[in-house]
Amino acid sequence: MKRACIINTINSPYSILHSVPISSVKFTKGLLAERLNTVREVTIPTQYELLEQTQRINNFRRASGKVKGDYFGFFFNDTDVYKWIEAASYSLMTEKNPELEKLIDGVIEEIREAQDEDGYLDTYFTFERKKDRWTNLRDMHELYCAGHLIQAAIAHHRATGKRNLLDIAIKFADHIESVFGPGKKEGTPGHPEVEMALVELFRETRDYKYLSLAKFFIDERGKGLVGGDLYHIDHKPFRELDEIVGHAVRSLYLNCGASDLYLETGDKEILNALERLWHNFTERKMYITGGAGARYEGESFGEDYELPNETAYAETCASIASFMWNLRMLHILPEGRFGDIMELVLYNGLLSGISLDGEKYFYVNPLVDSGKHRRQKWFACACCPPNIARLIASLPGYVYSTSFDGVWIHLYTSNEAEIDWKERKLNISVDTEYPWDGKVNIKLNSAGKYAIYLRVPNWAEKYDVAINGEILNGIIENGYLKVEREWKAGDLITLNFDMKPKYIEANPNVKDDVGKIAVKRGPIVYCIEQADNPNLEMDNLEVDTLQPLETTYEPILKGVTIVKGKGKIAKNVWKKMLYLPKEVVDLERKEVEFKLVPYYAWANREAGPMKVWIRKI
Amino acid sequence: MKRACIINTINSPYSILHSVPISSVKFTKGLLAERLNTVREVTIPTQYELLEQTQRINNFRRASGKVKGDYFGFFFNDTDVYKWIEAASYSLMTEKNPELEKLIDGVIEEIREAQDEDGYLDTYFTFERKKDRWTNLRDMHELYCAGHLIQAAIAHHRATGKRNLLDIAIKFADHIESVFGPGKKEGTPGHPEVEMALVELFRETRDYKYLSLAKFFIDERGKGLVGGDLYHIDHKPFRELDEIVGHAVRSLYLNCGASDLYLETGDKEILNALERLWHNFTERKMYITGGAGARYEGESFGEDYELPNETAYAETCASIASFMWNLRMLHILPEGRFGDIMELVLYNGLLSGISLDGEKYFYVNPLVDSGKHRRQKWFACACCPPNIARLIASLPGYVYSTSFDGVWIHLYTSNEAEIDWKERKLNISVDTEYPWDGKVNIKLNSAGKYAIYLRVPNWAEKYDVAINGEILNGIIENGYLKVEREWKAGDLITLNFDMKPKYIEANPNVKDDVGKIAVKRGPIVYCIEQADNPNLEMDNLEVDTLQPLETTYEPILKGVTIVKGKGKIAKNVWKKMLYLPKEVVDLERKEVEFKLVPYYAWANREAGPMKVWIRKI
Repeated sequence: MKRACIINTINSPYSILHSVPISSVKFTKGLLAERLNTVREVTIPTQYELLEQTQRINNFRRASGKVKGDYFGFFFNDTDVYKWIEAASYSLMTEKNPELEKLIDGVIEEIREAQDEDGYLDTYFTFERKKDRWTNLRDMHELYCAGHLIQAAIAHHRATGKRNLLDIAIKFADHIESVFGPGKKEGTPGHPEVEMALVELFRETRDYKYLSLAKFFIDERGKGLVGGDLYHIDHKPFRELDEIVGHAVRSLYLNCGASDLYLETGDKEILNALERLWHNFTERKMYITGGAGARYEGESFGEDYELPNETAYAETCASIASFMWNLRMLHILPEGRFGDIMELVLYNGLLSGISLDGEKYFYVNPLVDSGKHRRQKWFACACCPPNIARLIASLPGYVYSTSFDGVWIHLYTSNEAEIDWKERKLNISVDTEYPWDGKVNIKLNSAGKYAIYLRVPNWAEKYDVAINGEILNGIIENGYLKVEREWKAGDLITLNFDMKPKYIEANPNVKDDVGKIAVKRGPIVYCIEQADNPNLEMDNLEVDTLQPLETTYEPILKGVTIVKGKGKIAKNVWKKMLYLPKEVVDLERKEVEFKLVPYYAWANREAGPMKVWIRKI
Repeated sequence: MKRACIINTINSPYSILHSVPISSVKFTKGLLAERLNTVREVTIPTQYELLEQTQRINNFRRASGKVKGDYFGFFFNDTDVYKWIEAASYSLMTEKNPELEKLIDGVIEEIREAQDEDGYLDTYFTFERKKDRWTNLRDMHELYCAGHLIQAAIAHHRATGKRNLLDIAIKFADHIESVFGPGKKEGTPGHPEVEMALVELFRETRDYKYLSLAKFFIDERGKGLVGGDLYHIDHKPFRELDEIVGHAVRSLYLNCGASDLYLETGDKEILNALERLWHNFTERKMYITGGAGARYEGESFGEDYELPNETAYAETCASIASFMWNLRMLHILPEGRFGDIMELVLYNGLLSGISLDGEKYFYVNPLVDSGKHRRQKWFACACCPPNIARLIASLPGYVYSTSFDGVWIHLYTSNEAEIDWKERKLNISVDTEYPWDGKVNIKLNSAGKYAIYLRVPNWAEKYDVAINGEILNGIIENGYLKVEREWKAGDLITLNFDMKPKYIEANPNVKDDVGKIAVKRGPIVYCIEQADNPNLEMDNLEVDTLQPLETTYEPILKGVTIVKGKGKIAKNVWKKMLYLPKEVVDLERKEVEFKLVPYYAWANREAGPMKVWIRKI
């Protein structure tokens, strides 16, 4: 397929960078390739079974009259089916699978038969509840469901060229457009999602009415139509927002939609609001793992610097939404800060959402845990499992972008890419053990004059870059190193990022991190897990930051670099004491060694406590 | 007066130590003498004016029909009048003042006229509310008011020998005894206080019915008669308590009453419960200042190790109650641990409750504050001001105790004492600059064979003791050093406690103190206050605990030893960053100096932030 993109900004007038289709990039080895294969081979098939077992597909059969009985589960369960189709479609973009394609077509047929004559499609609002359609946009998620249908349909069309699901989605979108809009019904979704879907449908169809409808829904916010509160991000018009608040997934999905709207319209007020939200998010409300959402209450953002570790919400879906938003921001403003957040959240707070075996999920991603928090096979509210499946299946689409003068590399992972650029194809092979090793070999297999923009991650204080072995003294601008020349086929760019592990401090305003230290190596945030430290009393451990950290690559957890450090434990001295002179405690402090593993890989072995932020001496 | 005690345990069968009357001890100079003089000269007169201004005495005049109008203020406002009489009476014990005595007599006359024929006395429950007497023991504080009346009456009788208030109190106590008890009305106060008052009334009158009634009220707890909840300490029988919970003042007053009950009855179950409560309190629920009560909600204790600094409640009354309780425990078990807590809470969380000028008060004593928390002239609920007045006025009664073999010194402060011991008098003079200097000269002016027990504070890791200049190698048992010999008049015991300031760490389970350090010197807990550090950005300060602390005595704040230390500030680096490598922050850390002042003396100058627990590097 030619335009097998996650988002297609190639014709977007305000997109400085342009999408590179998923189908253009094949992961060849390494962590991301392994994760994608597991999703393809384990997650997508097992989730299909779960969709059947949990009556999610049967809800469509019920709507079309094929099966009897009550609607089953949450009123937004249709979305899990749509997200699964989207995941499976992305999978097809990089590996043909006629059986899977047939399976998808079967599900699409159930959806088709469930659709109303007038285009309306939501299996909850059928029969006795038909009368309640569009009566409660705040809570009932009809537009949220529509958004996921549209995204799935576009992915499926781009993957297979078939219009069977796209036609259903267009029919529903047209119905929505007949109901809502200026001079028609007022309203905006309580749960954003449809906005980015509608902009993408505009990109797919070039029909401006979908773009107008997306703009309408965004501009309807802040009028009190859906609660008028922070939770629904309805307390202010979008253009006036200056603090990221409310339900984290809703907030970040809304930002995706608003970014897409800017990419097509160039509306500066929207971009200014997005920049304010981005700064507030990344400078005051984001976990070190990239996780978003400090509070269980309302699954929401907290106050500035409110980032508790044990009760962190940091929903997997919020990490996914942040990743999606940052790619859009990167297309608006090609600056490394967006790629840095993409990389951070991907390797930490996002990948933590799925088990190494590919069939268990975290909904919530705490940064400190007693060992009770374990991944689950499924949830009654199962937004996260198919969401992480679609995200991982779409990862090849996040690695590159193009610009008028060349190719941008955002994420480093071994791959073979054939990138459409100015009526020609640029063939690039990347060979690396990243994120375990900082060396990245980029072979340019296509001769010609073009630029390669290399993201230099913000964590890489030291690095070097060589062309065919010759060190280059390039200048980094906005986080990217530009290398432009007349290339010969086979030219080799070698990046080498220093991956010395580092002690990380948190801003002292983050109360829960005061006196604590975290460890990062390259993009990977580490944690201490009981499994690697069976005899260590983790709660008493104080890291000695004067001691160096050491690393080794180990075959555990599907292969990871582990970090070893030293600390002290003063235990018995505290048994009956609340306060003690430091000199007394110092006498009791005994040196101990500890091991750290990547945070994303925790809770894949026997249950036990885990900490990202560890006390320091 | 012979028995001018705060509590009189001289005939208590289970009191190993015995009270030394307030009238036997004159403070001659130093911090406690200054505080007592201020209470005598400023606090007691100004509080009398406030009792009149706020209609608290008028409520008695109203009850006796002398003035018209509604009852004014909280239903427990009588207690403020009683506590003022108690404070004034203690003042009379160490300094005659006929005018003050006359003033007290005038107030007592108002009280007498307000008392009912049947002995009932509570100015709130008069006229239209007469019918509601004894209908709500949980909330309406009639027994709490009675307790304060009895305590005031005993203090007044012991100070002046007059029975005018004592007779009123006995009449009311007899009325209460006619209403409550086995076979009579069930019930127990929602706010303990009457228990210790009744035991003291038994000590004063030797009438066992008051002791029985105190026992009745304690044993009635845990039956659900006053809420059945933690707040009222009614969730369990007292003998089964194993965790200090509920409203801190109520809880600690109850422990005072239960301790008094043990002292007279030797009931081991009571003592075992008191020990459990003491250990739980001092090992898990006490602030470094001795403060008690972690929560604003219910003015209550929190969970184990729940000790937030900024939102600490640590009510002045709770510190007073803890001080009172620990003297009782010390009389039961003469162990230094109780004297250590007395000293700790006195010099920190208790003295902080009153301004240096003696006319403003803290109700709540936070350990970290933005500078908005200031002492007030008075409160609608004014329990703390007269409570701290009576406590400070009674301090001479807390310095010594006697035992069968000699004299125990609990608190070191310059004083002249003439102590009744075995049909004779022991004259002792103490000369010291304590708590600013660790040297204490104790001159024994009475010849003869007796023991002197010297408390060696738990903070004094290094000290020496000399007799007439000759170093003694004594053995400390349970926190006291016993020196027994045939003394000559004029023998000099010299104690010298090392008062090097120390960095103090909190138990790592105290979340709010993780990564922070406090400073103590001798018994004094220090804090950083903006007034002494005008150009320091206190929120960014990190103490460098590898640097030594220095001290100087300064004439500020009525004369205090201040502590100087060094730390670092890394400020701009955090402006837009949530997380940074330690090595990057280290580069920005600039050395700064800071000054600390005693916590009790904070907020006596211009308003500004204050912290006891300061971040460390």
